[in-house]
Amino acid sequence: MKRIRVIEIIQTEPKNQNVLVKGWVRSFRSNRFIALNDGSTINNIQLVIDFENFPEDQIRRITVGSCIAAQGELIPSQGSGQKSEVRVVQFEILGDADPGIYPLQPKKHSLEFLREIAHLRFRTNTFGSIFRIRHHVAFAIHRFFHERGFYYLHSPVITASDAEGAGEMFHVTSLDLSRIPFNDQKEVEYKKDFFGRPANLTVSGQLEAELAAMALSQVYTFGPTFRAENSNTTRHLAEFWMIEPEVAFNDIFDNMDLAEDMLKYVIGKVMTECTDDLKFLLDREEEEQKSKPQQERNEMNLLQRLQFCLDHQFERVSYTDAIEILRNSNPNKKGKFQYAVESWGTDLQSEHERYLVEKHYKKPVILFNYPKDIKAFYMRQNDDGKTVAAMDILFPGIGEIVGGSQREERYDRLASRMKEMHIPTEEMYWYLDTRRFGSCPHAGFGLGFERLMLFITGMGNIRDVIPFPRYPGYAEF
Amino acid sequence: MKRIRVIEIIQTEPKNQNVLVKGWVRSFRSNRFIALNDGSTINNIQLVIDFENFPEDQIRRITVGSCIAAQGELIPSQGSGQKSEVRVVQFEILGDADPGIYPLQPKKHSLEFLREIAHLRFRTNTFGSIFRIRHHVAFAIHRFFHERGFYYLHSPVITASDAEGAGEMFHVTSLDLSRIPFNDQKEVEYKKDFFGRPANLTVSGQLEAELAAMALSQVYTFGPTFRAENSNTTRHLAEFWMIEPEVAFNDIFDNMDLAEDMLKYVIGKVMTECTDDLKFLLDREEEEQKSKPQQERNEMNLLQRLQFCLDHQFERVSYTDAIEILRNSNPNKKGKFQYAVESWGTDLQSEHERYLVEKHYKKPVILFNYPKDIKAFYMRQNDDGKTVAAMDILFPGIGEIVGGSQREERYDRLASRMKEMHIPTEEMYWYLDTRRFGSCPHAGFGLGFERLMLFITGMGNIRDVIPFPRYPGYAEF
Repeated sequence: MKRIRVIEIIQTEPKNQNVLVKGWVRSFRSNRFIALNDGSTINNIQLVIDFENFPEDQIRRITVGSCIAAQGELIPSQGSGQKSEVRVVQFEILGDADPGIYPLQPKKHSLEFLREIAHLRFRTNTFGSIFRIRHHVAFAIHRFFHERGFYYLHSPVITASDAEGAGEMFHVTSLDLSRIPFNDQKEVEYKKDFFGRPANLTVSGQLEAELAAMALSQVYTFGPTFRAENSNTTRHLAEFWMIEPEVAFNDIFDNMDLAEDMLKYVIGKVMTECTDDLKFLLDREEEEQKSKPQQERNEMNLLQRLQFCLDHQFERVSYTDAIEILRNSNPNKKGKFQYAVESWGTDLQSEHERYLVEKHYKKPVILFNYPKDIKAFYMRQNDDGKTVAAMDILFPGIGEIVGGSQREERYDRLASRMKEMHIPTEEMYWYLDTRRFGSCPHAGFGLGFERLMLFITGMGNIRDVIPFPRYPGYAEF
Repeated sequence: MKRIRVIEIIQTEPKNQNVLVKGWVRSFRSNRFIALNDGSTINNIQLVIDFENFPEDQIRRITVGSCIAAQGELIPSQGSGQKSEVRVVQFEILGDADPGIYPLQPKKHSLEFLREIAHLRFRTNTFGSIFRIRHHVAFAIHRFFHERGFYYLHSPVITASDAEGAGEMFHVTSLDLSRIPFNDQKEVEYKKDFFGRPANLTVSGQLEAELAAMALSQVYTFGPTFRAENSNTTRHLAEFWMIEPEVAFNDIFDNMDLAEDMLKYVIGKVMTECTDDLKFLLDREEEEQKSKPQQERNEMNLLQRLQFCLDHQFERVSYTDAIEILRNSNPNKKGKFQYAVESWGTDLQSEHERYLVEKHYKKPVILFNYPKDIKAFYMRQNDDGKTVAAMDILFPGIGEIVGGSQREERYDRLASRMKEMHIPTEEMYWYLDTRRFGSCPHAGFGLGFERLMLFITGMGNIRDVIPFPRYPGYAEF
């Protein structure tokens, strides 16, 4: 007999039909009522078991976390809270969970504790919801690009170039670290390493995506990227997933449209496809809010924040205008910012971004045309000689969620900027080649997948929205 | 004016409407006819330009590989081979391609040469087709699992465990290789490394997928995996993408069904969605075949091979039966195998697999129930005491494309097998925990994405179906 998944059974009309369900026991009340979950949904199916008809030693093995297969009749539920239930005719314990040692007992566990048992936290309501939503977000991203005729590009993870300067890189080597070979000049003998040269983990697939976009027009990457930075924060990971579309013939404004469309598409899809899981996370957040002082509570709840994003056009503000707003803002005048905003040209801090998004505009903001000296070499130089066609999208509570730009397509401008910024032009011949041969205006951006997950789930720590987080001192599981 | 993509314009009824197209020049005949491609399809749009009406220096810049934007009327084509063409009213050169130095001239380039300029090979018909197909294959895989209620799991790339023993691993470190710190015992001082312990690049996400499957029931990974093996072959890469579904409550036969369904679904989707690109690759292969001696030519062409896969049930053969077939086979008796098949228990070589698939059964074969001593520790031990519930799917021309198994769900059996095989059980406590708490039968497999790409495109070298291949001595771009 074929098992029926819980997500299907709870949508099935109960007609006393014979069904087989398998899953894990979430609770067992009165020696009679089992709440069974199989991860297909946050909802449980209730199994009703006449304990009088089964051997006591079998009944005793029905514990929280144990895995069982049960066969019986699907009948209209006697109790409230569910449409149907299964009257168990026979059952089998597939796997025990000794209540004396099983760590996930039916009580509130802290997120910190669950992080330490990340191999089991999938079994909780919170993490079940998060990782089901994570799937839907990822699939919505693929679907968005597929529907628009983009091609998915697998940019390389191991790279010999350290050109982007986006951050510290991890080294990749097949050499035995305890016996690194050196040459006569006392340099590492990279000839003996796997790739015959130093190799690193990528910080971005953008440069490779540009190569593909100059032929396929519209591509996107969706893969892991890495930073070897000692950032122990709730917003940084050493390993995280990034989405990087790159589009030939797009300018900075097309780029903004694409990013805004994508974010709205994905949020819209999740709101229709993950209603139960979002409802659970909403309730969870509401509960959490109660323990906070009034002024720290969210003005909008999770679903309101998501809906708000769909309903409003993102505010587009030039860096120059943003600086004026910040200089004249109350917190700046009253010295409430940790870093006072004084002059044009400084990089914005998280507190400034949050002020713009959460206080001034109260909606997502797209900042653009940044000073060239605080941005990367490949961004297109504007005619003012001071700024580049960069854009960052800032989200409430999250800060930067997207960073992108129109790229410098003019060979001479790009090459001279690379020299100014000490980017090795010979090593990067392949990047410059795209500007030597059939160059064209193009633009793209990077979306931090886990940052988006934070926004969509309302979780506060980025370590809780990726299955197995990697950060300084931690690579468990 | 908004540009129209070539894939759309060639499906548009020509009614003298004004259109804007942008793309790269594939050819320029008689100073009049431009074949323009924008990568959205393998097809070009023909632009007709009255050179008499334009400055000569502009016309001279229309060269193979140059990028142009052209505006004009979409009219029924005068020539054969296309429905419509664009009579150019005005055009702009977006990027030149000096014919004296642009490497991609309209002649046949070898795949080896194109591999050296992988940053430009997207611009050829062959690689345009391959990477468009690669997108469709990837998307079909996501769609297959999504439709069946699987959840996409991002298993970690950096891992501290080297347990699977699937192959040599790359080391990941933030330490300066030229100044590795040592402790008093002359061991590497890993405390100073980023993760505080040795870390590697993953060889498989399976073990982590199992953790998730024991809560979400049905998950799959689709991410990069790595081997630091010195394999300079046409079938191996140091960095490749793998799909690894893992399903609670599935046994080895459910696992076979899932793998066969998936492969047929994906091949079927590609055959309906990539007809033009497959037709191009078919013609390309036919051309290539002509230069081969008769007996080395394929019995079926590319499309026939794909269709054949859809039309036939994969043959399911136990290892034990396969050994009998091979022992009694003509090539074995006549000493034609490099490795003679003599006794039960030996691992099969590529030549044996090919014989079974290409000569004996002439279709995809699923071999199962392998001797336990040639398989991994986590595979479920059969009651015969000799074999494990492993399965490999062998494809014509490719060999192993899928490897999987039912997993050992019984704690005692698993723990003792790990000890026998010197897998550190303390370090792997998290894996064993799934068998201590709510264990259940489950199964999964790994699909090598590039191997599948080889089969679908008919290409002969795995370095040609991934954008930027990594192999010994090579990590360019």
